[in-house]
Amino acid sequence: MVVSLRLPSLTSLFSPSARRSPASFRQFYLRPPFSAGFTAQSKASSPAETDDRVASQKNRVNQDRVITPRSQDFNAWYLDVIANAELADYGPVRGTMVIRPYGYAIWEAIQDYLNVKFKETGHSNMYFPQFIPYSFIEKEASHVEGFSPELALVTVGGGKELEEKLVVRPTSETIVNHMFTQWIHSYRDLPLMINQWANVTRWEMRTKPFVRTLEFLWQEGHTAHATPEEAEKEAMQMIDIYTKFAYEQAAIPVIVGRKSKVETFAGADKTYTIEAMMGDRKALQAGTSHDLGQNFSRAFGTQFTDENGERQHVWQTSWAISTRFVGGIIMTHGDDNGLMLPPKLAPIQVIIVPIWKKADEKTGVLTAALSVKGVLQTAGLKVKLDDSDQRTPGWKFNFWEMKGVPLRIEIGPRDVSSGSVVISRRDVPGKEGKVFGISMEPSILEAYVKDKLDEIQSSLLGRATSFRDSNIVDVGSYSELKEAISLGKWARGPWSASDADELRVKEETGATIRCFPFDQPLGIKTCLMTGKPAEEVAIFAKSY
Amino acid sequence: MVVSLRLPSLTSLFSPSARRSPASFRQFYLRPPFSAGFTAQSKASSPAETDDRVASQKNRVNQDRVITPRSQDFNAWYLDVIANAELADYGPVRGTMVIRPYGYAIWEAIQDYLNVKFKETGHSNMYFPQFIPYSFIEKEASHVEGFSPELALVTVGGGKELEEKLVVRPTSETIVNHMFTQWIHSYRDLPLMINQWANVTRWEMRTKPFVRTLEFLWQEGHTAHATPEEAEKEAMQMIDIYTKFAYEQAAIPVIVGRKSKVETFAGADKTYTIEAMMGDRKALQAGTSHDLGQNFSRAFGTQFTDENGERQHVWQTSWAISTRFVGGIIMTHGDDNGLMLPPKLAPIQVIIVPIWKKADEKTGVLTAALSVKGVLQTAGLKVKLDDSDQRTPGWKFNFWEMKGVPLRIEIGPRDVSSGSVVISRRDVPGKEGKVFGISMEPSILEAYVKDKLDEIQSSLLGRATSFRDSNIVDVGSYSELKEAISLGKWARGPWSASDADELRVKEETGATIRCFPFDQPLGIKTCLMTGKPAEEVAIFAKSY
Repeated sequence: MVVSLRLPSLTSLFSPSARRSPASFRQFYLRPPFSAGFTAQSKASSPAETDDRVASQKNRVNQDRVITPRSQDFNAWYLDVIANAELADYGPVRGTMVIRPYGYAIWEAIQDYLNVKFKETGHSNMYFPQFIPYSFIEKEASHVEGFSPELALVTVGGGKELEEKLVVRPTSETIVNHMFTQWIHSYRDLPLMINQWANVTRWEMRTKPFVRTLEFLWQEGHTAHATPEEAEKEAMQMIDIYTKFAYEQAAIPVIVGRKSKVETFAGADKTYTIEAMMGDRKALQAGTSHDLGQNFSRAFGTQFTDENGERQHVWQTSWAISTRFVGGIIMTHGDDNGLMLPPKLAPIQVIIVPIWKKADEKTGVLTAALSVKGVLQTAGLKVKLDDSDQRTPGWKFNFWEMKGVPLRIEIGPRDVSSGSVVISRRDVPGKEGKVFGISMEPSILEAYVKDKLDEIQSSLLGRATSFRDSNIVDVGSYSELKEAISLGKWARGPWSASDADELRVKEETGATIRCFPFDQPLGIKTCLMTGKPAEEVAIFAKSY
Repeated sequence: MVVSLRLPSLTSLFSPSARRSPASFRQFYLRPPFSAGFTAQSKASSPAETDDRVASQKNRVNQDRVITPRSQDFNAWYLDVIANAELADYGPVRGTMVIRPYGYAIWEAIQDYLNVKFKETGHSNMYFPQFIPYSFIEKEASHVEGFSPELALVTVGGGKELEEKLVVRPTSETIVNHMFTQWIHSYRDLPLMINQWANVTRWEMRTKPFVRTLEFLWQEGHTAHATPEEAEKEAMQMIDIYTKFAYEQAAIPVIVGRKSKVETFAGADKTYTIEAMMGDRKALQAGTSHDLGQNFSRAFGTQFTDENGERQHVWQTSWAISTRFVGGIIMTHGDDNGLMLPPKLAPIQVIIVPIWKKADEKTGVLTAALSVKGVLQTAGLKVKLDDSDQRTPGWKFNFWEMKGVPLRIEIGPRDVSSGSVVISRRDVPGKEGKVFGISMEPSILEAYVKDKLDEIQSSLLGRATSFRDSNIVDVGSYSELKEAISLGKWARGPWSASDADELRVKEETGATIRCFPFDQPLGIKTCLMTGKPAEEVAIFAKSY
């Protein structure tokens, strides 16, 4: 069943709708450019807002906006959700994105969790300059090959043409190694384990908000070790932290594994990845951890004196998660009604909607609502009271559902009398997700709400896991693989064929090897392409 | 009395000094380039570390490093402290800086405090792209005049020459207004109050670590309001938050006031500032808050419909504090022994140094030290135990003093027997700052340490305040002003002269008006330059 959810424009949310002339409104104009594609150049020139005639003409446009049903057009749905939930907006430069407060708050929740984990595992935050001499990028052969098509270059500084053009960092391995050579001397300086939260720039041609933008925010960890074993252990530790984060915080049942050689990071020996299945069954690479071996240390001469007095090149790792992960959350959990946020990362976990009809009911209801808010806030929950009188309760229900708030508490005059509230779950629509008569008594209410939030967190993970598992097909031959991919599914099958074969699969089906999952089936395996013995199964899928 | 503090190189800290051949060391090479001046181009090309012969030659350089006494050469002292305390290092591009973990941790402490204050006062974090179309910068006349000499320009992206060159943000008022025009419609959308933590780029010619770098980190707040009164109130609120932060967290007794017209931010109606007196008595502008009036809203057409249905331009503010503040902390509190950090911003508040001579003493001492560490950590303090056996206790005392740790706890075999510790204050040198026999009993120890940290925090502020006050001279004439400035002091005197006169003072004395302080003396004032009536006193000083 496909239904369009009609929502008033976000503009009109903050405007009194009754007494105002149409000329006092302006259309948000968010949806048309988003639907027209993020890659389209948005106008950098100033809009003609200073001309009041133009403004008033624009104002006559219909206020209501529609979220395209997810089942109808996944991409349009995604862009509509981002616009309507005010997660992000276009920047003036093609492919750039403004992360709005509600979207940024999700990123902050991701940061808060990971930052603690990084420090617990012995990493220190620091900051490297974003301008990298062009010559640095050229030092590691596969690195320059991988990144040079995507570089933004600063050629003028302070009004003068620069002698050496500067790269705006696409990633920092090169400058990190340049500095490591100055800090690492003896084996006693190792391991050196650092992280930075930063912006990075990649001149992408096909962009999409959060998923692939010209500039994005991320963290990049960089470590140096005395032995290959330690570097490998570190790379594994970090992909493990990402995996736990995805499951436990984002409720995304990622598949963790090793990239094929073709898909390995430019400059790495091995790349580990967490791959998430989006609602349209495309894969999203949601985080990576690289065992860099000695590739960068040899290119930059990052050496240490070992316990025997011998000079050795260090063994390195790097690992990153970016604002792309926010896109992954949207596309994993969202539905036709909009966003659906996992409670642990939701900027607002509980929305309280007070309901009154007569003026004399208002005070009692608002007093009760404020008290409930206080109780939950004291309990450490992120709670908001929507007490505006510009909108009906029904409108607010839709609006906060669209914003993905996990729990809604409704309080009307009858609830005030009975000392109870009504609680609705975002993940269970309609009456089924609604429970009446939950006591306002603080300890009971707090326990109930926390319990429900945990239930929603688990439920989201469970649902996404079922969806994932029902969309992965075990294949034993190339024709089975092709069929699975053509049905939009992920194909899992034994693989020991060549890089050329892997590229052929990509050309013929659009699917790539997402990873060789760590979790491997037992038994003898035969390569689906060549019929020769295979050690591992690989997962193939179309991806973002 | 001028004494050079000799410290072993940081490299050798991590190296066993006894059994190692000189060829296994490498000189850090930090001090020479720092002293040679931050503006000098450091070598972007890869050092020849891959050549072992070169490395071993370098290794023969003397390991000991010296912190130039502060009284002897303030600038050399500053650079030595930054290098020795591992706060920052040069980036490969001229004028850029790598913020090392210990320096970054100070910035994180600043962020943690301010981020909470910003949110408490109703601001939301978000993120704007750093690439701004060049045409945006040109829209506000004084803004382009102020910033165009300092711009870094991206002219190539993805291998192609760009149609419109992009500015790497020097500040974000222009792009913020471009977006505000899309988000602000009615008076109900106001106030709009946001903040971003970001990197910014200004192509400075004379650079100095933390104080003035080509790229730096900051927060920039941007707000839009319906009335000039609200914008003014916001600008004042934010400079007030900065002032409280400086006094209460950084122990820096800033002078808060209004900038002269000449010194006002390019594009602002009014700039409020906090001015700090460094140890060399130069002024450091440590934070600013701008009442932008309608300058940017008129340039970008940022309008709203007011309660009467009329279109109006919004009234705006912006305000910022940057990593420059870290430089201010170093230069306010540091002494000949190195860094001295205010306890509230110190990454390590308490360093524990265990002392033993005989092997059989070690276990008891370390057990006690670990227990003390646990007690203080549980009490929420930032504490580190230096249990390395590579260094003598005396070496560790000097090292952690140089790193500015406010309190040191010493535990030897006798202390273990008596169940007590020795506590030394960083801010009171020698025996005077040392107290013996503080009980290890958790509640006593915790209370004592917390009390001492508070005392140090107050003492640092008190000392800096006395220093400041004894170096501000009230002047009534230009000749008195010139004399005060020539003595390296700040001059405070009534001022109502012209911009031309202000520039003349700068040319003739090197001093500028730092601010018209909010705190004004009573009584009739006569302009020190013209003899005409003056409404306010201004503070003149040489500055960074």
